[in-house]
Amino acid sequence: MGHLAQGSPFACDLLLLPLVKVGIVQQSCGLDKQANIQQSLRGIAECARQGADLVVLQELHCGIYFCQAEDPAMFDLAEPIPGPDADVFAEAARRHRVVLVCSLFEKRAPGLYHNTAVVFERDGAMAGKYRKMHIPDDPAYYEKFYFTPGDLGFAPIATSVGKLGVLVCWDQWYPEAARLMALAGAEVLIYPTAIGWESTDPEAEKARQYDAWFTVQRGHAIANGLPVIAVNRVGHEPDWTGVTGGIQFWGQSFVVGPQGEVLYRASADRQEVAVIDIDQRRTEAVRRMWPFLRDRRVDFYHDLVRLFRD
Amino acid sequence: MGHLAQGSPFACDLLLLPLVKVGIVQQSCGLDKQANIQQSLRGIAECARQGADLVVLQELHCGIYFCQAEDPAMFDLAEPIPGPDADVFAEAARRHRVVLVCSLFEKRAPGLYHNTAVVFERDGAMAGKYRKMHIPDDPAYYEKFYFTPGDLGFAPIATSVGKLGVLVCWDQWYPEAARLMALAGAEVLIYPTAIGWESTDPEAEKARQYDAWFTVQRGHAIANGLPVIAVNRVGHEPDWTGVTGGIQFWGQSFVVGPQGEVLYRASADRQEVAVIDIDQRRTEAVRRMWPFLRDRRVDFYHDLVRLFRD
Repeated sequence: MGHLAQGSPFACDLLLLPLVKVGIVQQSCGLDKQANIQQSLRGIAECARQGADLVVLQELHCGIYFCQAEDPAMFDLAEPIPGPDADVFAEAARRHRVVLVCSLFEKRAPGLYHNTAVVFERDGAMAGKYRKMHIPDDPAYYEKFYFTPGDLGFAPIATSVGKLGVLVCWDQWYPEAARLMALAGAEVLIYPTAIGWESTDPEAEKARQYDAWFTVQRGHAIANGLPVIAVNRVGHEPDWTGVTGGIQFWGQSFVVGPQGEVLYRASADRQEVAVIDIDQRRTEAVRRMWPFLRDRRVDFYHDLVRLFRD
Repeated sequence: MGHLAQGSPFACDLLLLPLVKVGIVQQSCGLDKQANIQQSLRGIAECARQGADLVVLQELHCGIYFCQAEDPAMFDLAEPIPGPDADVFAEAARRHRVVLVCSLFEKRAPGLYHNTAVVFERDGAMAGKYRKMHIPDDPAYYEKFYFTPGDLGFAPIATSVGKLGVLVCWDQWYPEAARLMALAGAEVLIYPTAIGWESTDPEAEKARQYDAWFTVQRGHAIANGLPVIAVNRVGHEPDWTGVTGGIQFWGQSFVVGPQGEVLYRASADRQEVAVIDIDQRRTEAVRRMWPFLRDRRVDFYHDLVRLFRD
């Protein structure tokens, strides 16, 4: 079997949903938190100047990727939400009249921290937040030390530019997360992220890793008929404990449409600000001809809630 | 977050699982059923000659893709399993000492038909079958007229070359199907398929369709840390009812490894037989460093059994 388009299914002019201009800010971060924040704010301003309705920042953009090592002092970087960091970005959303997705280290209580994406409306009000649900832990990405897995589930955040399926980094490997957002009416999937290469990886392995990351997220776009926005950190950050050669974050933030078609891809080695048009009408058009949601076998999916079927 | 390989995670010499030599037979089909079967048998023999342990045929390889139109006479093509067609392929598996995945139009009862993959062991015994669970229906792929959705669920088939996660065509768009097979211990995902372009599709749309098909299946490989084998029909088949210009099946059968890395891809316009090595040890190695199964949030996946979360 298969599917085909009868002529172009994308000339679907019955629908008048908006174009959305999506701004992305791919940046490098250092130890000076205020410098990182200023860099993000300049990026937001530039996106707004270019007409962005929605701006997406990368994961944990206020600081270095502190999960390279397990260091209790790093909890000092966390703040409550609302709190000083959140307030800065709320004000930026208000000032520039954009919907803003930012990513903060949330202090919920002493000893209880989350990796949290926060969405602000154009008036600076908090539209909602998402606490990273899937938490990785592997050499140089010791996130289970820092972050309690989220307890808010997979719920899109309603905004003036649509329902945003905001997820964070490691979530990007999980088809379940993307699907649950789509089933809840998300109109776009958004992944702030911080991923890179360890310095001793051979080049062929680096290429496989990057390609797998790009491909699995394009797969979520295709399987769900939704655009995907992924904004990644760029640049090298040393391991301050001296154990590894540090991480070269691979940048290459991207935007793809609902067939996984590539609309934008940033460089691997530079800070970048870009504004990309997403045509929300394409989701309706694509899903009419590729009606995957119609045919799901929910009567046989119950074992998806098991860790293993043994 | 992210992940990285500490040196090469693939030099994992504690494990001694086998290499498997996978044969694939990409073919064109016409109205002469016996000619189609003979072509498949030649392909199986050639794969065996090249050392294949496992041979995978394309979807509904005994005939034309009859779902281009709704024609009750086409039910004459169906046979019970076991039955004459199944017996031919059982004998081929036995003669060539290969595990064989074939794809048959199953007559279960008058008025009850399935699109069924059948797996034969090296001795010709039936190892198991899978009835296509997700059934498409869109212009020129009128499968809901012909096939009752499967009732056997998503269960790998145990064979002498491992547990095979056999799915069929439209299933390839569903992350749920791949995941359920992985959770049940499948060691490889296998998709016999028949997919192509309608003649009036513009070239850019054709490119997006093919790339989406290839990408979403590579995504299943990555998300589950499993090799994927997809064997597709090739060549043009006219629409005998004269409604459309027929389907140009796009071939390009492929094998990818557990990071989605491409091991083999056939042409878009020729019949092909090929044998590709799959190193089963790579799944263990990749999953050690990309332990996606470890972190699934099964406590929040229950809504995957709903059609929509409204």
